Amino acid sequence: MQDAIEAAFEAGIKLGALYHQWVGTPISPQTAPTVEQAIERAVALQPCVESVRVRIDTSLMAPNAFGYSELSGSMFDVAITTRVRGTACSAQLKFEDGYPMMRIVSCHEAP
Amino acid sequence: MQDAIEAAFEAGIKLGALYHQWVGTPISPQTAPTVEQAIERAVALQPCVESVRVRIDTSLMAPNAFGYSELSGSMFDVAITTRVRGTACSAQLKFEDGYPMMRIVSCHEAP
Amino acid sequence: MQDAIEAAFEAGIKLGALYHQWVGTPISPQTAPTVEQAIERAVALQPCVESVRVRIDTSLMAPNAFGYSELSGSMFDVAITTRVRGTACSAQLKFEDGYPMMRIVSCHEAP
Amino acid sequence: MQDAIEAAFEAGIKLGALYHQWVGTPISPQTAPTVEQAIERAVALQPCVESVRVRIDTSLMAPNAFGYSELSGSMFDVAITTRVRGTACSAQLKFEDGYPMMRIVSCHEAP
Repeated sequence: MQDAIEAAFEAGIKLGALYHQWVGTPISPQTAPTVEQAIERAVALQPCVESVRVRIDTSLMAPNAFGYSELSGSMFDVAITTRVRGTACSAQLKFEDGYPMMRIVSCHEAP
Repeated sequence: MQDAIEAAFEAGIKLGALYHQWVGTPISPQTAPTVEQAIERAVALQPCVESVRVRIDTSLMAPNAFGYSELSGSMFDVAITTRVRGTACSAQLKFEDGYPMMRIVSCHEAP
Repeated sequence: MQDAIEAAFEAGIKLGALYHQWVGTPISPQTAPTVEQAIERAVALQPCVESVRVRIDTSLMAPNAFGYSELSGSMFDVAITTRVRGTACSAQLKFEDGYPMMRIVSCHEAP
Repeated sequence: MQDAIEAAFEAGIKLGALYHQWVGTPISPQTAPTVEQAIERAVALQPCVESVRVRIDTSLMAPNAFGYSELSGSMFDVAITTRVRGTACSAQLKFEDGYPMMRIVSCHEAP
């Protein structure tokens, strides 16, 4: 059970960090894949990360007069799995009811 | 136990977020109290936060040629308590062995 | 004339920096004055800054389900004056036509 | 001359912005090329940018106990050219004497 608590803590750290690191970046549908990859690779460097997948919802972009958008929290669709010893915790960041919601999907012992 | 996992997740989110939101800010011993207060008040707005205390270790500042420093992760000394229903989780961000370490201090049922 | 070019460059650096440092911070009408002050004090530490005034337009805040907003570029109203030797350059960051616009207001020799 | 002042202002905005947007990102020699590309593409979206080249000095990385570094200002080697009407301004961000220095290289009329 302590492992599940720690794994959830680690998942929270990564989601909170990526959100505030990257929000505000100039972005367009053409550059989104590069940013997705840069975020995934940055998160994967951190301790306890088993997997991470980042998608940016380009349909939520609203280009300004200069033709680009700013990456906002609402565009994020992130799934992450952290592991502490034998316990894996899956969590997500997803836009729900007007709010970029972070939640735990599952925490369980994993081989 | 689910509450403890969620409370730990929420504590992780806040620590990860504040770290990456504020690292890089120009800072000096004179401006540190204002930044401490601004961070505390920003964190306290977020869901599940019961208390937060931020101290910036001014002794780690190394002023550049222009007389100021940049806020780095090593300067942070943060204590936070989150609560999900009846469970409170206390965590900290503190410089240990050359690394700004985030750890859970305790998670337990609280009145 | 070289001084005017350098003073404008310095003003641009400060506006670009503060925008991307602070966007995304959780904020409310109650905490806005502390954030305004923290930004002003951080900018004032940097070289060539003669004065800076930051106002956050609380009327543009749209509280989420948890009762707070995120600081967005559109909320900024910033006036800055930089100086390089005998030339002062005044610039601003202001919401115009749906875009947080940065512009030079004036550059001129100043006693 | 007004064009040179505006081009320098725009170059300053881009350098200040990228610095504070990206500092703090977890990074390693293996992930540096992806981050360089993500920054270049983000900057190139913004108005008045004619060209931008970002290099991250991997020799300055000091891996922590978990094997990765944080992107710091000292690692940046950035060259940018902005243009306002007929005037081009080239500027750079480079580590000099312990400080990540931003300077104008040249501003001149360009065909």
